[in-house]
Amino acid sequence: MKDSLLADRARQTAQAVDHLFDQLFAVPQDPRRSLYEAMRHAAIGGGKRLRPLLVSATGDLFNVAQDSALRVGVAVECIHVYSLVHDDLPAMDNDDMRRGRPTVHRAFDEATAILAGDCLHDMAFEILVDEATHGDPFVRCELVKALALASGPAGMAGGQMMDLEAEKASFDLPTVTRLQQLKTGALIGFCVEAGAILGHVPHEGRTGLRGYARDIGLAFQIVDDLLDVEGDEALAGKALGKDAAAGKETFVSLLGVERAREQAHMLVDQAKAHLHGFGAQADLLRAIADYIVERDR
Amino acid sequence: MKDSLLADRARQTAQAVDHLFDQLFAVPQDPRRSLYEAMRHAAIGGGKRLRPLLVSATGDLFNVAQDSALRVGVAVECIHVYSLVHDDLPAMDNDDMRRGRPTVHRAFDEATAILAGDCLHDMAFEILVDEATHGDPFVRCELVKALALASGPAGMAGGQMMDLEAEKASFDLPTVTRLQQLKTGALIGFCVEAGAILGHVPHEGRTGLRGYARDIGLAFQIVDDLLDVEGDEALAGKALGKDAAAGKETFVSLLGVERAREQAHMLVDQAKAHLHGFGAQADLLRAIADYIVERDR
Repeated sequence: MKDSLLADRARQTAQAVDHLFDQLFAVPQDPRRSLYEAMRHAAIGGGKRLRPLLVSATGDLFNVAQDSALRVGVAVECIHVYSLVHDDLPAMDNDDMRRGRPTVHRAFDEATAILAGDCLHDMAFEILVDEATHGDPFVRCELVKALALASGPAGMAGGQMMDLEAEKASFDLPTVTRLQQLKTGALIGFCVEAGAILGHVPHEGRTGLRGYARDIGLAFQIVDDLLDVEGDEALAGKALGKDAAAGKETFVSLLGVERAREQAHMLVDQAKAHLHGFGAQADLLRAIADYIVERDR
Repeated sequence: MKDSLLADRARQTAQAVDHLFDQLFAVPQDPRRSLYEAMRHAAIGGGKRLRPLLVSATGDLFNVAQDSALRVGVAVECIHVYSLVHDDLPAMDNDDMRRGRPTVHRAFDEATAILAGDCLHDMAFEILVDEATHGDPFVRCELVKALALASGPAGMAGGQMMDLEAEKASFDLPTVTRLQQLKTGALIGFCVEAGAILGHVPHEGRTGLRGYARDIGLAFQIVDDLLDVEGDEALAGKALGKDAAAGKETFVSLLGVERAREQAHMLVDQAKAHLHGFGAQADLLRAIADYIVERDR
């Protein structure tokens, strides 16, 4: 039953995200055409939409309007997608495939990819601060501040910088953990926090949810490292085995496959324990936690 | 007297901007160090700080607190600087020098430049939405929305995309005008609008100021095109003559040097005419307009 709850909501969310992207990125008939086409190529169709699903699932706990949660989910997906577009660039990870399609700089060119990423970055904040997202300007300000922190140098982009340095240094487990808490954890943390912000939950009421987000974020990354070693490139829709080739330390290189897998399962159990205060309305968050260790892509 | 008013305020603003950047970008002693150093290299020391000065000068009309205007000015300068960092990249304009120093990707590397630009982009919104910028969350939301619009695909980045296309097509005068209204005009428009937003001036009260911003924005770009042909590289601190080399149409290629210069002067007179309803408190805005056509770098 939990599985169909997750599958249903994941499908609904993915459809709603694509629909909103389609509306937001209407292609103008002027010389900016390929910029919008590149944004559409990057954003529409594909991806697990885990982040919008997390906003929506957390919103469920506090009776947040579906449309508010969806718009915040689309904003955070803009940030996630922009980061993928820039990370795939030749000067960064130099990837040719993403979500089973050519990366933006391969389908268009590098300059268009840089600009499309920059525009998705702006769109995130434009959506978040729009009155349609939430009427209360306090709430909108809090969302913008939390997202800017989660995506900037003290969040995702800071983690990406550490990841670049990881090729030159030999990081230990605490440093790899910190790297991943920034690189993927900060944005996942924002998603859960955003559900609480939309629900007008004060800071001190978000401790359990923060613990949940921290644990699934780390579990998510450990599984990513496992899939990078053991996964199926066709399923993943992107090149794998790149960390080992680049000589980067990962959870798997530091812990070994077995202990890494155990650690991911332990974190997911711990994440669910953080939800003990919530009843059946947190079942979707529990199902997401289980999915994170069970996924094969 | 106007000249010393401009010189004094420009110097004060530049110092205050550098001081705030220095505080905001404290370098952490961890693997993100070079990311922060790259942000500092790009942002601190140098630049005309025209945009912060415009926010501050417009704020003067409505008795806006200096510190609020300064923080908004620093936010818009973050956007301006991030766009320079990305525009200078090899895949874009491929520039080696900026403000008399190596560009960020030359002083560091391309990956660091991409990330430093992305981080400056986030910092703009983080500063703008911070309660220290302005207590009223309505005002902060309006600022975030206006800046996201001015910097995204319907503003600066959209203009940059048109600029890339300009190398392939042969744009006519209305298209070059539209390109420049997006590429440089939108952000200059934001600066003036922001002064009015901070002063709680309603939309309908901003018509004259919008006209002023549109006219100085266009004049600014025409003078840039003139300097690209006639300027001094040592004074400019960057390579010149690049538009002609790239075969791009500009105001100068379309109008010729003399008519372009006349047009810039006409626009500046028109910009000042938009300020007729304001008394001596608009003298700084008038001096900025004059400076825009008189500058040699």
